Amino acid sequence: MAETGVNLAEKLALVKQYWSPRTVADLNDHEVKVVKVLGEFTWHAHDSTDELFLVVGGRLTIRFRDHEVVLQPGELCVVDRGVEHCPVAEVETHILLIEPRGVINTGASGGELTAAAHRV
Amino acid sequence: MAETGVNLAEKLALVKQYWSPRTVADLNDHEVKVVKVLGEFTWHAHDSTDELFLVVGGRLTIRFRDHEVVLQPGELCVVDRGVEHCPVAEVETHILLIEPRGVINTGASGGELTAAAHRV
Repeated sequence: MAETGVNLAEKLALVKQYWSPRTVADLNDHEVKVVKVLGEFTWHAHDSTDELFLVVGGRLTIRFRDHEVVLQPGELCVVDRGVEHCPVAEVETHILLIEPRGVINTGASGGELTAAAHRV
Repeated sequence: MAETGVNLAEKLALVKQYWSPRTVADLNDHEVKVVKVLGEFTWHAHDSTDELFLVVGGRLTIRFRDHEVVLQPGELCVVDRGVEHCPVAEVETHILLIEPRGVINTGASGGELTAAAHRV
Protein backbone atom coordinates (compact mmCIF):
# COMPACT_ATOMS: atom_id res chain seq x y z
CA MET A 1 0.00 0.00 0.00
CA ALA A 2 1.31 3.45 -0.87
CA GLU A 3 2.41 5.45 2.13
CA THR A 4 -0.03 8.16 3.13
CA GLY A 5 -0.15 10.89 5.72
CA VAL A 6 -2.35 10.56 8.80
CA ASN A 7 -3.83 13.76 10.24
CA LEU A 8 -4.33 13.17 13.96
CA ALA A 9 -7.00 15.86 14.41
CA GLU A 10 -9.07 14.44 11.54
CA LYS A 11 -8.84 10.95 13.00
CA LEU A 12 -9.72 12.18 16.49
CA ALA A 13 -12.79 13.97 15.10
CA LEU A 14 -14.14 10.55 14.09
CA VAL A 15 -13.84 9.14 17.60
CA LYS A 16 -17.09 9.44 19.56
CA GLN A 17 -16.36 7.35 22.63
CA TYR A 18 -14.00 8.12 25.51
CA TRP A 19 -11.27 5.66 26.51
CA SER A 20 -11.68 3.72 23.30
CA PRO A 21 -8.42 3.68 21.32
CA ARG A 22 -8.59 3.58 17.53
CA THR A 23 -5.67 2.37 15.45
CA VAL A 24 -4.46 4.78 12.76
CA ALA A 25 -1.16 3.18 11.68
CA ASP A 26 1.08 0.17 12.17
CA LEU A 27 4.74 0.39 13.12
CA ASN A 28 6.43 -3.01 13.04
CA ASP A 29 4.72 -5.04 15.82
CA HIS A 30 3.29 -1.88 17.39
CA GLU A 31 0.10 0.02 16.69
CA VAL A 32 -0.29 3.79 16.61
CA LYS A 33 -3.64 4.78 18.09
CA VAL A 34 -5.63 7.88 18.89
CA VAL A 35 -7.87 8.08 21.94
CA LYS A 36 -10.15 10.70 23.46
CA VAL A 37 -10.35 10.65 27.22
CA LEU A 38 -12.23 12.43 29.99
CA GLY A 39 -12.45 11.58 33.66
CA GLU A 40 -10.60 8.82 35.47
CA PHE A 41 -9.59 5.52 33.92
CA THR A 42 -8.88 2.25 35.75
CA TRP A 43 -5.74 1.46 37.74
CA HIS A 44 -3.93 -1.17 35.70
CA ALA A 45 -0.57 -2.38 34.43
CA HIS A 46 0.67 -4.08 31.28
CA ASP A 47 3.01 -6.84 32.42
CA SER A 48 4.79 -7.40 29.15
CA THR A 49 4.94 -4.04 27.43
CA ASP A 50 5.75 -0.37 27.76
CA GLU A 51 3.12 2.14 26.63
CA LEU A 52 3.69 5.58 25.08
CA PHE A 53 1.28 8.48 25.74
CA LEU A 54 1.70 11.69 23.71
CA VAL A 55 -0.80 14.44 24.45
CA VAL A 56 -2.15 16.17 21.32
CA GLY A 57 -4.70 18.39 23.06
CA GLY A 58 -6.02 18.90 26.58
CA ARG A 59 -4.12 17.74 29.66
CA LEU A 60 -3.43 14.25 30.96
CA THR A 61 -2.40 13.27 34.45
CA ILE A 62 -0.90 9.82 34.78
CA ARG A 63 -1.06 8.72 38.41
CA PHE A 64 1.50 6.25 39.66
CA ARG A 65 1.49 4.71 43.11
CA ASP A 66 4.22 7.09 44.32
CA HIS A 67 4.01 10.13 42.04
CA GLU A 68 2.16 11.58 39.09
CA VAL A 69 3.08 13.05 35.72
CA VAL A 70 1.06 15.86 34.11
CA LEU A 71 1.29 16.06 30.32
CA GLN A 72 0.39 19.10 28.22
CA PRO A 73 0.15 19.07 24.42
CA GLY A 74 3.53 18.22 22.92
CA GLU A 75 4.56 16.19 25.98
CA LEU A 76 4.94 12.44 26.18
CA CYS A 77 5.50 9.77 28.80
CA VAL A 78 6.43 6.13 28.42
CA VAL A 79 4.95 3.96 31.17
CA ASP A 80 7.29 1.05 31.71
CA ARG A 81 5.98 -2.51 31.64
CA GLY A 82 4.56 -3.75 34.91
CA VAL A 83 4.09 -0.29 36.38
CA GLU A 84 0.62 0.39 37.79
CA HIS A 85 -0.86 3.60 36.47
CA CYS A 86 -4.16 5.41 36.27
CA PRO A 87 -4.71 8.05 33.57
CA VAL A 88 -6.95 10.97 34.54
CA ALA A 89 -8.17 13.87 32.38
CA GLU A 90 -9.99 16.79 33.97
CA VAL A 91 -10.79 18.19 30.51
CA GLU A 92 -11.39 16.34 27.26
CA THR A 93 -7.96 15.23 26.19
CA HIS A 94 -6.67 13.86 22.90
CA ILE A 95 -3.82 11.38 22.97
CA LEU A 96 -1.56 9.47 20.63
CA LEU A 97 -0.88 6.02 22.09
CA ILE A 98 1.70 3.52 20.88
CA GLU A 99 1.84 -0.04 22.13
CA PRO A 100 2.20 -3.51 20.64
CA ARG A 101 -0.62 -5.01 18.61
CA GLY A 102 -3.12 -6.87 20.80
CA VAL A 103 -2.64 -4.97 24.06
CA ILE A 104 -5.82 -4.69 26.15
CA ASN A 105 -6.39 -1.11 27.31
CA THR A 106 -7.21 -2.08 30.88
CA GLY A 107 -4.32 -4.55 31.19
CA ALA A 108 -5.22 -7.37 33.58
CA SER A 109 -7.72 -5.22 35.49
CA GLY A 110 -10.64 -5.60 33.05
CA GLY A 111 -13.90 -3.82 33.81
CA GLU A 112 -16.42 -1.84 31.81
CA LEU A 113 -13.83 0.44 30.21
CA THR A 114 -12.17 -2.48 28.43
CA ALA A 115 -12.33 -1.60 24.73
CA ALA A 116 -12.15 -3.72 21.60
CA ALA A 117 -9.54 -2.84 19.00
CA HIS A 118 -10.84 -0.80 16.08
CA ARG A 119 -9.41 1.22 13.26
CA VAL A 120 -10.49 4.68 12.30
CA MET B 1 13.45 4.96 37.23
CA ALA B 2 10.33 6.98 37.97
CA GLU B 3 8.29 7.86 34.91
CA THR B 4 8.67 11.46 33.82
CA GLY B 5 7.19 13.67 31.15
CA VAL B 6 9.19 14.62 28.07
CA ASN B 7 8.51 18.02 26.50
CA LEU B 8 9.30 17.74 22.81
CA ALA B 9 9.88 21.48 22.26
CA GLU B 10 12.35 21.60 25.15
CA LYS B 11 14.24 18.62 23.78
CA LEU B 12 14.26 20.03 20.26
CA ALA B 13 15.67 23.32 21.57
CA LEU B 14 18.76 21.38 22.67
CA VAL B 15 19.40 19.97 19.19
CA LYS B 16 21.84 22.08 17.21
CA GLN B 17 22.51 19.88 14.21
CA TYR B 18 20.19 19.03 11.33
CA TRP B 19 19.43 15.40 10.41
CA SER B 20 20.88 14.17 13.68
CA PRO B 21 18.24 12.27 15.68
CA ARG B 22 18.38 12.41 19.48
CA THR B 23 16.74 9.76 21.62
CA VAL B 24 14.33 11.06 24.26
CA ALA B 25 12.59 7.86 25.42
CA ASP B 26 12.54 4.09 25.04
CA LEU B 27 9.47 2.09 24.11
CA ASN B 28 10.09 -1.65 24.27
CA ASP B 29 12.69 -2.36 21.55
CA HIS B 30 12.00 0.99 19.87
CA GLU B 31 13.46 4.43 20.50
CA VAL B 32 11.58 7.71 20.47
CA LYS B 33 13.72 10.43 18.93
CA VAL B 34 13.51 14.09 18.02
CA VAL B 35 15.21 15.48 14.96
CA LYS B 36 15.54 18.91 13.34
CA VAL B 37 15.76 18.88 9.57
CA LEU B 38 16.27 21.34 6.75
CA GLY B 39 16.99 20.67 3.10
CA GLU B 40 17.14 17.32 1.39
CA PHE B 41 18.23 14.08 3.03
CA THR B 42 19.60 10.98 1.31
CA TRP B 43 17.55 8.43 -0.63
CA HIS B 44 17.60 5.30 1.50
CA ALA B 45 15.59 2.38 2.84
CA HIS B 46 15.56 0.36 6.04
CA ASP B 47 15.29 -3.26 4.99
CA SER B 48 14.15 -4.66 8.30
CA THR B 49 12.03 -2.00 9.93
CA ASP B 50 9.22 0.48 9.50
CA GLU B 51 9.86 4.09 10.54
CA LEU B 52 7.39 6.58 11.98
CA PHE B 53 7.63 10.32 11.24
CA LEU B 54 5.39 12.73 13.17
CA VAL B 55 5.80 16.40 12.33
CA VAL B 56 5.84 18.67 15.39
CA GLY B 57 6.61 21.93 13.57
CA GLY B 58 7.41 23.01 10.02
CA ARG B 59 6.59 20.88 7.00
CA LEU B 60 8.11 17.61 5.81
CA THR B 61 7.88 16.12 2.36
CA ILE B 62 8.69 12.43 2.12
CA ARG B 63 9.50 11.55 -1.46
CA PHE B 64 8.89 8.01 -2.62
CA ARG B 65 9.83 6.66 -6.04
CA ASP B 66 6.24 6.95 -7.27
CA HIS B 67 4.59 9.58 -5.08
CA GLU B 68 5.22 11.94 -2.20
CA VAL B 69 3.58 12.68 1.14
CA VAL B 70 3.55 16.18 2.65
CA LEU B 71 3.21 16.31 6.43
CA GLN B 72 2.13 19.36 8.43
CA PRO B 73 2.32 19.60 12.24
CA GLY B 74 0.06 16.94 13.79
CA GLU B 75 0.45 14.63 10.81
CA LEU B 76 2.36 11.36 10.71
CA CYS B 77 3.48 8.81 8.18
CA VAL B 78 4.86 5.32 8.65
CA VAL B 79 7.37 4.35 5.98
CA ASP B 80 7.20 0.60 5.54
CA ARG B 81 10.33 -1.50 5.68
CA GLY B 82 12.22 -1.77 2.44
CA VAL B 83 10.61 1.28 0.87
CA GLU B 84 13.03 3.82 -0.58
CA HIS B 85 12.33 7.33 0.62
CA CYS B 86 13.93 10.75 0.74
CA PRO B 87 12.79 13.28 3.37
CA VAL B 88 12.91 16.92 2.29
CA ALA B 89 12.17 20.04 4.34
CA GLU B 90 11.93 23.45 2.67
CA VAL B 91 11.73 25.15 6.07
CA GLU B 92 13.27 24.09 9.38
CA THR B 93 11.13 21.20 10.50
CA HIS B 94 10.87 19.42 13.84
CA ILE B 95 10.03 15.74 13.85
CA LEU B 96 9.31 12.92 16.28
CA LEU B 97 10.79 9.69 14.93
CA ILE B 98 10.15 6.20 16.23
CA GLU B 99 12.13 3.20 15.07
CA PRO B 100 13.88 0.22 16.66
CA ARG B 101 17.02 0.73 18.69
CA GLY B 102 20.15 0.62 16.55
CA VAL B 103 18.70 1.79 13.25
CA ILE B 104 21.12 3.83 11.13
CA ASN B 105 19.48 7.02 9.86
CA THR B 106 20.76 6.62 6.31
CA GLY B 107 19.89 2.93 6.09
CA ALA B 108 22.29 1.10 3.77
CA SER B 109 23.05 4.26 1.79
CA GLY B 110 25.61 5.72 4.19
CA GLY B 111 27.20 9.07 3.38
CA GLU B 112 28.05 12.21 5.28
CA LEU B 113 24.62 12.59 6.86
CA THR B 114 24.97 9.29 8.72
CA ALA B 115 24.56 10.20 12.39
CA ALA B 116 25.63 8.48 15.58
CA ALA B 117 22.98 7.72 18.19
CA HIS B 118 22.80 10.22 21.03
CA ARG B 119 20.42 11.10 23.82
CA VAL B 120 19.26 14.55 24.68
